[in-house]
Amino acid sequence: MTLPNEMTALVQLHDGYAGTQSGPNIADLTPFLEKRSVAVPTPGKGQAVIKVNLAAVNPSDIHFIKGEYGQPRVKGMPAGFEGVGEVVAGETPLKGQRVSFFASASGSWAEYAMTDVTTLVPCRPDLADVDAAGQLVNPLTAIAMFDIVKESGADSFVLNAAGSQLGKLLIALGRDHGVKPIAVVRRSAQAESLKALGAAAVIVTGEPDPLGAAKTIFETLKPRVLLDAVGDQFTSDLFFAMPSHTRWVNYGKLSMEAPALSQLGQLIFQSKQIEGFWLTRWMKEVDQARIPQAFVEIQDRFVSGTWKTDVAGIVPLSEAMDKLPAVLALPDGKAFIDPRA
Amino acid sequence: MTLPNEMTALVQLHDGYAGTQSGPNIADLTPFLEKRSVAVPTPGKGQAVIKVNLAAVNPSDIHFIKGEYGQPRVKGMPAGFEGVGEVVAGETPLKGQRVSFFASASGSWAEYAMTDVTTLVPCRPDLADVDAAGQLVNPLTAIAMFDIVKESGADSFVLNAAGSQLGKLLIALGRDHGVKPIAVVRRSAQAESLKALGAAAVIVTGEPDPLGAAKTIFETLKPRVLLDAVGDQFTSDLFFAMPSHTRWVNYGKLSMEAPALSQLGQLIFQSKQIEGFWLTRWMKEVDQARIPQAFVEIQDRFVSGTWKTDVAGIVPLSEAMDKLPAVLALPDGKAFIDPRA
Repeated sequence: MTLPNEMTALVQLHDGYAGTQSGPNIADLTPFLEKRSVAVPTPGKGQAVIKVNLAAVNPSDIHFIKGEYGQPRVKGMPAGFEGVGEVVAGETPLKGQRVSFFASASGSWAEYAMTDVTTLVPCRPDLADVDAAGQLVNPLTAIAMFDIVKESGADSFVLNAAGSQLGKLLIALGRDHGVKPIAVVRRSAQAESLKALGAAAVIVTGEPDPLGAAKTIFETLKPRVLLDAVGDQFTSDLFFAMPSHTRWVNYGKLSMEAPALSQLGQLIFQSKQIEGFWLTRWMKEVDQARIPQAFVEIQDRFVSGTWKTDVAGIVPLSEAMDKLPAVLALPDGKAFIDPRA
Repeated sequence: MTLPNEMTALVQLHDGYAGTQSGPNIADLTPFLEKRSVAVPTPGKGQAVIKVNLAAVNPSDIHFIKGEYGQPRVKGMPAGFEGVGEVVAGETPLKGQRVSFFASASGSWAEYAMTDVTTLVPCRPDLADVDAAGQLVNPLTAIAMFDIVKESGADSFVLNAAGSQLGKLLIALGRDHGVKPIAVVRRSAQAESLKALGAAAVIVTGEPDPLGAAKTIFETLKPRVLLDAVGDQFTSDLFFAMPSHTRWVNYGKLSMEAPALSQLGQLIFQSKQIEGFWLTRWMKEVDQARIPQAFVEIQDRFVSGTWKTDVAGIVPLSEAMDKLPAVLALPDGKAFIDPRA
C-alpha cells in the first residue's frame, strides 16, 4: 500500500501548558485546533503508522488540547489520544491488521496516526469499531481502578460522574464481580438507568441532603474506595463520611472547586488516604502480564454485551471543528471522529 | 513492696469524644480533669503497675482530654499517655526496674500507672528521667517518620512545627543521616537555633512570601516528604509546591483551618499522595524487630547528646491543675508532671 504524502488532521495551535484550570467543557475548538493538510507521519524505529477508521474523544483529550493535562502540547501536531484503524506502515507483524492504539507519536484526529508498536492492540473481527476506538483509555482505566476496589476487600465502592462512559463500565464490573457500586450523579433522571445497569445505590447531588443519604448507604454497604472524576467539595465530604481505611482515588477534575479537608484527623486515626490514578503511570508500573489479559477481558465484554459503548455522535473529521462541541455537550454517550468522512 | 490503696491522680471528667476540633491549646484544665484520690490500679493478667517517677505531657494528651483524639476518653480514669517509673507489681521480670511505658490501662498523670507488660521499655541507668519520661511518643514517632523520609530516597525533607520537641528530634536525625531538613516555623526568632541544630533551610511563615521562599529552596533540595503537624492552608500550598512523588504525611492538627486542595491534578500526574501517621498503628504494622532496635538508638542518642530534651517546666502533680497550662503556653520545650511532689 502506498501512502499519500498529505493528510487532513486537527492540528494543535499551542505548545506546552496553558497554566489555566478550566475543566473538560469546550464550546469552541478554534482557539486550540485547526483543520489542516499536513504530512503523513513516517515511522521511525519501533513505530507504526495506522490508517484511522475511527478516533475517540475523551475528557482527557479536551484537557490536553486546552493545555491543562499532565503532558505538554506540541504545536503543529495532530490531537487525539486513541482510535482504531489498520496498520499500514512500520516494522510489525500486525501490518494489515485492525488495531486499537494509543497515539503516542502523532494524534488520532487525523487520517493517519503514528505510535510505538508496543502499544498496538489487535482487535477481534467481531469487535465493533465504536468499541475498538475507545478500547484503551476508558476500559483499561476501569479495569485498573477496579483492581484497586478488589484490593480494598470491601463489598462495595463509590464512584462519581457515574453516568459517564467510564462510570458505566465500572458499574458493570461491580455488578459482574459482586462488588456493589454506589453511584454519585448530579441529576435524578440518571438514577433509574444506573440502577438498571447494576448500581446498588444512587446518590443524587442535586437532591436535598445528598450527604445524609450517603451516610445511610455507607452504614450498610461499608465501601472503602472512592473513585473520583470530579474533585469537588461534595467528594471531599463523601470521603470523610466513608468508613475507616477509605482510599480517595482521584482520576479527573470535572469541578473547578478546590475541595477542603474538613477532618484531616481521619487520615491519622482511620488510615484514610488521598491519591491519584493515571493510566499512563499504571501501565508502566503494573505487572506487564496484566495488560494483554485486560484486553482479552475488554474485548470479551464488548462482544458479549456486558459492556456497551453509548454513542453520542460520530462527527466526520472534515466537519469536526464546527460540529464536535455540540456532540460533546450531550449529557450521555461518547463522541467519535470519523477521518474517512 | 506493699502498695497503698489510694493514690493522687488527675482524673478525666468525661467519656468518649467531644465532637469539637479546638486544637492542642489549653488555658484551663478544670473542664476536663480533676485532682482526686482514687484506688491504686490492680494488675490483671499480662499487666504491670508502675510507680511513676515523671510523666510527660504531649500535644496528644491535650487532644485526648478534650475529647478530640482518635480514641475515646474513659470517665474516672487518670489521664496521661506516657512516663517513666519503677515496676512495682505484675508478672514481669522487669519488676523493680526503671522503665518507660505507654499507659494503656491507667494513665501516667498519677502516682501509679498501669499498662500491658509488652509495652514496657527498660531504661539504661545513664538515661535521665526527663529523657526516659518522653521516650515513647515523640522519639519513636521521629524514628518511624524518618523511616518514611529514608524510603523517599530524596536528599531532603520538609517538616513544620519544626521548633517542637518532635521537630528538633527530626532535624537531628536528618543532620546525622545526611538528609537535609527544611524547617517550617512561625517566628523568625526560631530560625537561628534550628539552623544551629542542623536545619539546612528555614521557612518562616510569619515573613513576607514564605511560599516563594519555599519554592526557591525546593528547586535546589528537591524534598519528597512533608511531615506535617499543622494541617493548615500553607501546608497544602507547600505540598503542591513540592516536587513530584511527594507524600504529605499528616500527624497532627495545630491549625483549625480546613486546607483546600488547589491542584488536585498533581495527585494524578505527579504521583503525589496525602496520608496520615499514627504511632499506635505503626507499632502494630511495622516489622516488630524495628521497635526494640529503635529504643536502643533512642537511648543512645539521649545519653550521647545527639538528642536533647528541652524542659519547659516540671510541675508537681499536687499543683498541676493550676500550674500546667502556663508551662504548656511557653513557646519552647516540654512539660512534665512529677507525681512524687
